[in-house]
Amino acid sequence: MSVDSIVQDLLGRHDEILERLCEFLRIPSVSTDPAFAEGMRDAQQFLLSWLKSMGLSDVQLLDGGGHPAVYGAWHGAPGKPTVLIYGHYDVMPPDPVEAWLTPPFEPAIRDGRLYARGASDVKGSTVIALEVVAAFLKKQGGCPVNIKIFLEGEEETSSPSLRTIVDRFGTLLQADAMISADGGRASPVIPTINMGSRGLVELEFSLRTADKDVHSGRYGGAIRNATHEMARIIASLHDEHGAITIPALMAGVPQPSHEMRAQANGLPFDGARFISEVGAQAHGEPGFSVREQLTLRPSLDVNGIWGGYTGPGTKTIVPNSAYAKLSLRIAPGQDPRQASEAIKAHLRANCPPGVDLSIVDPETGSSAFSLPTRHPLVVSARKVLREATGQEPVLVRLGPTVPITAIFREMLGVETLMFGFNLPDEDIHAPNEFFHIASIAQGLSAWARLLGELGQCDRDSFRSAANEAEEASLAAQSLTA
Amino acid sequence: MSVDSIVQDLLGRHDEILERLCEFLRIPSVSTDPAFAEGMRDAQQFLLSWLKSMGLSDVQLLDGGGHPAVYGAWHGAPGKPTVLIYGHYDVMPPDPVEAWLTPPFEPAIRDGRLYARGASDVKGSTVIALEVVAAFLKKQGGCPVNIKIFLEGEEETSSPSLRTIVDRFGTLLQADAMISADGGRASPVIPTINMGSRGLVELEFSLRTADKDVHSGRYGGAIRNATHEMARIIASLHDEHGAITIPALMAGVPQPSHEMRAQANGLPFDGARFISEVGAQAHGEPGFSVREQLTLRPSLDVNGIWGGYTGPGTKTIVPNSAYAKLSLRIAPGQDPRQASEAIKAHLRANCPPGVDLSIVDPETGSSAFSLPTRHPLVVSARKVLREATGQEPVLVRLGPTVPITAIFREMLGVETLMFGFNLPDEDIHAPNEFFHIASIAQGLSAWARLLGELGQCDRDSFRSAANEAEEASLAAQSLTA
Repeated sequence: MSVDSIVQDLLGRHDEILERLCEFLRIPSVSTDPAFAEGMRDAQQFLLSWLKSMGLSDVQLLDGGGHPAVYGAWHGAPGKPTVLIYGHYDVMPPDPVEAWLTPPFEPAIRDGRLYARGASDVKGSTVIALEVVAAFLKKQGGCPVNIKIFLEGEEETSSPSLRTIVDRFGTLLQADAMISADGGRASPVIPTINMGSRGLVELEFSLRTADKDVHSGRYGGAIRNATHEMARIIASLHDEHGAITIPALMAGVPQPSHEMRAQANGLPFDGARFISEVGAQAHGEPGFSVREQLTLRPSLDVNGIWGGYTGPGTKTIVPNSAYAKLSLRIAPGQDPRQASEAIKAHLRANCPPGVDLSIVDPETGSSAFSLPTRHPLVVSARKVLREATGQEPVLVRLGPTVPITAIFREMLGVETLMFGFNLPDEDIHAPNEFFHIASIAQGLSAWARLLGELGQCDRDSFRSAANEAEEASLAAQSLTA
Repeated sequence: MSVDSIVQDLLGRHDEILERLCEFLRIPSVSTDPAFAEGMRDAQQFLLSWLKSMGLSDVQLLDGGGHPAVYGAWHGAPGKPTVLIYGHYDVMPPDPVEAWLTPPFEPAIRDGRLYARGASDVKGSTVIALEVVAAFLKKQGGCPVNIKIFLEGEEETSSPSLRTIVDRFGTLLQADAMISADGGRASPVIPTINMGSRGLVELEFSLRTADKDVHSGRYGGAIRNATHEMARIIASLHDEHGAITIPALMAGVPQPSHEMRAQANGLPFDGARFISEVGAQAHGEPGFSVREQLTLRPSLDVNGIWGGYTGPGTKTIVPNSAYAKLSLRIAPGQDPRQASEAIKAHLRANCPPGVDLSIVDPETGSSAFSLPTRHPLVVSARKVLREATGQEPVLVRLGPTVPITAIFREMLGVETLMFGFNLPDEDIHAPNEFFHIASIAQGLSAWARLLGELGQCDRDSFRSAANEAEEASLAAQSLTA
């Protein structure tokens, strides 16, 4: 039985697959908020049952102390490469819920789009990957490669226990290469291959200026106000163009090579339109195109800020405390630990005397990721996409972070191809997230053909390409700033 | 029957009066939050019943479109002055509730202090005033002066419908003078008389930088972040010393006279200790003492700020909106309307192009208030306090705002003596608000004697002193900056 007939089988069962995706989307598996603990458990059970029913072995939860990952394997292709398939079953909080046109956990189809929290990020592409493996096993009795499935439950909280899981279950996770359902497409019309992604560092900090909130008539004008101090510190992070103004942080950012800049600008991309589509204003480091800003340069954002009275009406207090959540997207070649320390040192240096600064560092930092051009994953993906579309795929980098890519390279020496089928306009992490339904058929076909191609590869070719990548990565880190 | 015997009667019923105060404090009459609507109604009913039971006439609610005021009158002393007694039955929200040692609406006594939301601000002093009137009527069959009781329900929300109420019910509210239960004592050991208070202007504003929150990996580094813009605007309001940096605003603030500065510094007051007692840091306009900063100078505070994701864990977004609540304490002689316009112009001038600024102006501004030294209210209060304490009272100004003082002067030509018995350490507007129980006896005695003194005054003396005050106020407004 050929890969073609597997693709035929999958496309013939499109509506059944769409319904399974909807079933998965109905489970509110929000990892960051303990109020959704039951949704997380339901998602685990849904996946464990499914992996067992498709005939995988070793099906189990891998516990690292947080939300466990779901695992299953198929070892029936001795001598063939072993491919680890990555996805995640957790989703972002649906807030603000009132901004959704239909409830976030009741999938709804409108205009060829499937609306639900997690539809794009990343239950859609995860279901595509799992359906392809299931079809090979059911219709053909086996896959072109050995398979390991690894579905994380903490991707949306920056994977706090991922390193522990890899430490504890390293043997189970050994593979020749990884394909990730997370990390999607850059364009609906031009085939693209993801060559890398930015890393991520997160911090939360708070300021305290007095023992308690006090009356603004009684104390106002004579004491520090925590929200004013917070504003001064946040205002010190960027200049008027939006460029980061922490010299120690920027000193750790390599100047991107001409090749990287050329690649970043290789995809036809209307930066002004991309920004105006969300009603925003261009604002960022001068001297770089939007695409370069988004993929080759770090970005530092306050994700949330609060302090004082935020309820209805008024409360005339001088607030004694203020809070901010910060995240930094890490540029290729930048060290997340150095970056995190530079931010913390800046916060300390800009905190006035007598104001208590408290920093919570989850130490979940991850580096940017880069895949070498000659890696068999890239070669195979190029061939599959070229044949499917009749166009030569464009190599691109992603702005977002897929922490597992850097962690699996570092801990297991495994390279990752991000082969998700989500698209940039799908409002991930925002209200009314959706998945283009047309992507389901495109993804099923491409994943089946990619597994077929990888089945033709020599196992050794993965390892030698990975070593080459390691050298390239070290070279990229020699700063030229 | 003499005033002495009224005082004896009141002091003999101390515990009964304390229990009535507790009953009042158990009613959660939070005016700013619609969730407490029932508490507001219960407080109105409690007061209506009480005023009726003590024999007042015209007992009714005065409706101005918001929370109504409670009113009652006694006209049994023809030829004597008519004194309007002011208090308010609404209280601040109890947030953060978890910071209270005992629940905010379950009064608890510890170490001679009565803890409950509203105990100090201002149910304690309001109950004192009402008990004194009730005692005169019950024991003596009448008061030394004609009485009108006016208990507001919107003091903690800056009295939005007070002007409408005064417009509608001006005839009911005509009086020779007002005594306010709000506006308390400056010291527990030195008798003080409140000669004035700062005014208040409030604004809320928000910024919008995009149509929605977007993913910080996908957009971070290329678009504006609403929380960053909010921080820059808030940071622009003050210099590094804490002085306001809005020139148009400060141009409207008269330089205080030598006499006002001498009066402000006349009360023995350890500014450094006052500030360190709440664990705060001195920070404010250079060149003025703490007492001057708090009573003679304007202060601009952010009372609350929020934007982006503020829940548990992380959410890596670029927030599209941010919000702030602002309040300005108005200095003597400063025009609240001019001040409000100056702030709004500053916000507009500092809002970058492409960022939507939205300002909500409740237009509840009130001027600072000043009472002339020779007013019969001051002369009478001086005598009562001198005799009660054996010390000459010190004339002081208050930092907080009692909007009714300015509004009643402006609309009815009535001057107000703020004769509350709360003390500065009672954590008003904050968790664990309390009232010193010893203040109940001191307040009952002083209010009874003050009504007795005012009964000796010629009605005409109030009006002529008020005219004098008008002239003094105009003189103070001639800017010398």
